[in-house]
Amino acid sequence: MKALVYHGPGKRTWEDKARPTVEKPTDAIVKIARTTICGTDLHILKGDVRAVAAGRILGHEGVGVVAAVGAAVSGFKAGDRVLISCITSCGTCEACRKGMYSHCAKGGGWILGNLIDGTQAEYVRIPFADTSLYHVPKGSDEDALVMLSDILPTGFECGVLKGQVKPGDTVAVIGAGPVGLAVLMTAQFYSPAEIIVVDLDDNRLKAAKALGATKTVNSGDGKAAEAVRALTAGRGVDVAIEAVGIPATFEMCQDIVAAGGFIANVGVHGTSVELKLERLWSRNITITTRLVDTVSIPMLLASVASGRLQPRQLITHEFALEEFMKAYDVFGNAAREKALKVIVRAV
Amino acid sequence: MKALVYHGPGKRTWEDKARPTVEKPTDAIVKIARTTICGTDLHILKGDVRAVAAGRILGHEGVGVVAAVGAAVSGFKAGDRVLISCITSCGTCEACRKGMYSHCAKGGGWILGNLIDGTQAEYVRIPFADTSLYHVPKGSDEDALVMLSDILPTGFECGVLKGQVKPGDTVAVIGAGPVGLAVLMTAQFYSPAEIIVVDLDDNRLKAAKALGATKTVNSGDGKAAEAVRALTAGRGVDVAIEAVGIPATFEMCQDIVAAGGFIANVGVHGTSVELKLERLWSRNITITTRLVDTVSIPMLLASVASGRLQPRQLITHEFALEEFMKAYDVFGNAAREKALKVIVRAV
Repeated sequence: MKALVYHGPGKRTWEDKARPTVEKPTDAIVKIARTTICGTDLHILKGDVRAVAAGRILGHEGVGVVAAVGAAVSGFKAGDRVLISCITSCGTCEACRKGMYSHCAKGGGWILGNLIDGTQAEYVRIPFADTSLYHVPKGSDEDALVMLSDILPTGFECGVLKGQVKPGDTVAVIGAGPVGLAVLMTAQFYSPAEIIVVDLDDNRLKAAKALGATKTVNSGDGKAAEAVRALTAGRGVDVAIEAVGIPATFEMCQDIVAAGGFIANVGVHGTSVELKLERLWSRNITITTRLVDTVSIPMLLASVASGRLQPRQLITHEFALEEFMKAYDVFGNAAREKALKVIVRAV
Repeated sequence: MKALVYHGPGKRTWEDKARPTVEKPTDAIVKIARTTICGTDLHILKGDVRAVAAGRILGHEGVGVVAAVGAAVSGFKAGDRVLISCITSCGTCEACRKGMYSHCAKGGGWILGNLIDGTQAEYVRIPFADTSLYHVPKGSDEDALVMLSDILPTGFECGVLKGQVKPGDTVAVIGAGPVGLAVLMTAQFYSPAEIIVVDLDDNRLKAAKALGATKTVNSGDGKAAEAVRALTAGRGVDVAIEAVGIPATFEMCQDIVAAGGFIANVGVHGTSVELKLERLWSRNITITTRLVDTVSIPMLLASVASGRLQPRQLITHEFALEEFMKAYDVFGNAAREKALKVIVRAV
């Protein structure tokens, strides 16, 4: 089969690889129908994620058709259309039984396209299939459902749930990439009064406006924190959600959060940051981190089915599977290409 | 009247001051029966709390008798025995109506012995008396109740509530000073499985054992984090509570918290700290800060009345009001004097 393979920093190829087979009784083999590229894949290609070995097939998002299942799989059979969670979960360890699938102690967690081969291929092996796959409801827009593998649960669980967004709140979302926009979309479940979106890219801010931002701030002048404070009459925001992953944006969150507020970190960070405890110790602040657990996928599927959530709005580009190298070129130059999420389809 | 007066860094005197009078209709004047000294008073004397002006009477804890009330005070009358909250609250602003009295927007918050004259005197003026005083239940041990002005609500609200201590949890309390011990005592309301107390001082660790610590770790060898991890079979603790206020102990909390755990900051910090987001971003951690609001005083009064909570255990030394300078000498050398809380009584 063909697959997108990582060969060390800066090197990727579209090449022939062996088709995966059932290795354990709890495995399923899924023929990929639709997949996409994540900002995390770009991080891997920069060499930022050292655990990823050369030769690894990338990708942790997708929708497909079950091709084969191991003897212990009871919830899925060949021919079933499935949504693949970016987080694999055994369902039985202490962490999984708490719903913290990201910290699965029996070999799950974020492993697809990281510690085992991923979804940017014709076929993928999914361990613990019963607890790592979801049935695609009949009549679904499967392009849209690919957004439920990772970015929508990530934005919702790490940003909205951890930030405890409530009706009437003023929320700031720092970063309007696909995950920041997923925060913006799912924050609206809880009817905050204001959602202020901050980014460097006017095109992304325009997308944010279309997706429900009540105000936008371009941070290019280095004065975004002042601008957000001015928009809240100096009070600051109830919830500041960091969806970038660099010290400057995490520090901005500390500068704009109101007393009693929340800073929910969504971004993937590569370095430590300065926590201004000399100012924050008395401000009744809650700071949270989380790796997505994808426990919200069933809720998100119901929200898409009802039309309440429309993830197709995040898709800007479409490619065929054999155009995967081109899809990376476009997604890797997101600002120039005005790209949000790309969808890659098997014919 | 006599009072303990701050005259700039390192300078305190026991001197004559004018007796306070009702200035606003919501004021009460309280004759102090019992008061104490807080670690924060020592910080003020070091010059760490710049808002405190020379000439200020210190102190924010105490029990006394109402001497006079303004025309608008409805809940208290002359002769009532009262517990003074370290936090003054107007009860009507947005913050107070949310129960966040520490951030009272109409002149309340932590003002006693800070922005206005405090309780280390024969008399004190209490603004917003209806919402800043509590009736002393008949037959109370009033020495014990002085611990409810600040340290017990602080330990409980900033440590135990913010850390969401639950039955079965493993909790670490970093720092076994009076506030750390208040955390230890009130954490037991929620029946955690283990409470590990960390301190440099063996005498304080012995006190912690007597007050319910299941394990203690002396951090003098610089390997306390490793010791705590070993006590939890490498897993880390569900809740790490920082009750010191320096970067080293906040960093220790980051090193010992389990995935999915809480770091509740109680300490007063004078500098920023390094937040290891490159490791913590994916660990599903919640970090909280809070200035005590004293919303828990009614609950704590009920717990003392029932005998469930015995704050007298925190009192190691007793002085008469005219011995205030000596009381400071002892409390300021707590390790040498084996002092926890001192009680200072009017005759």
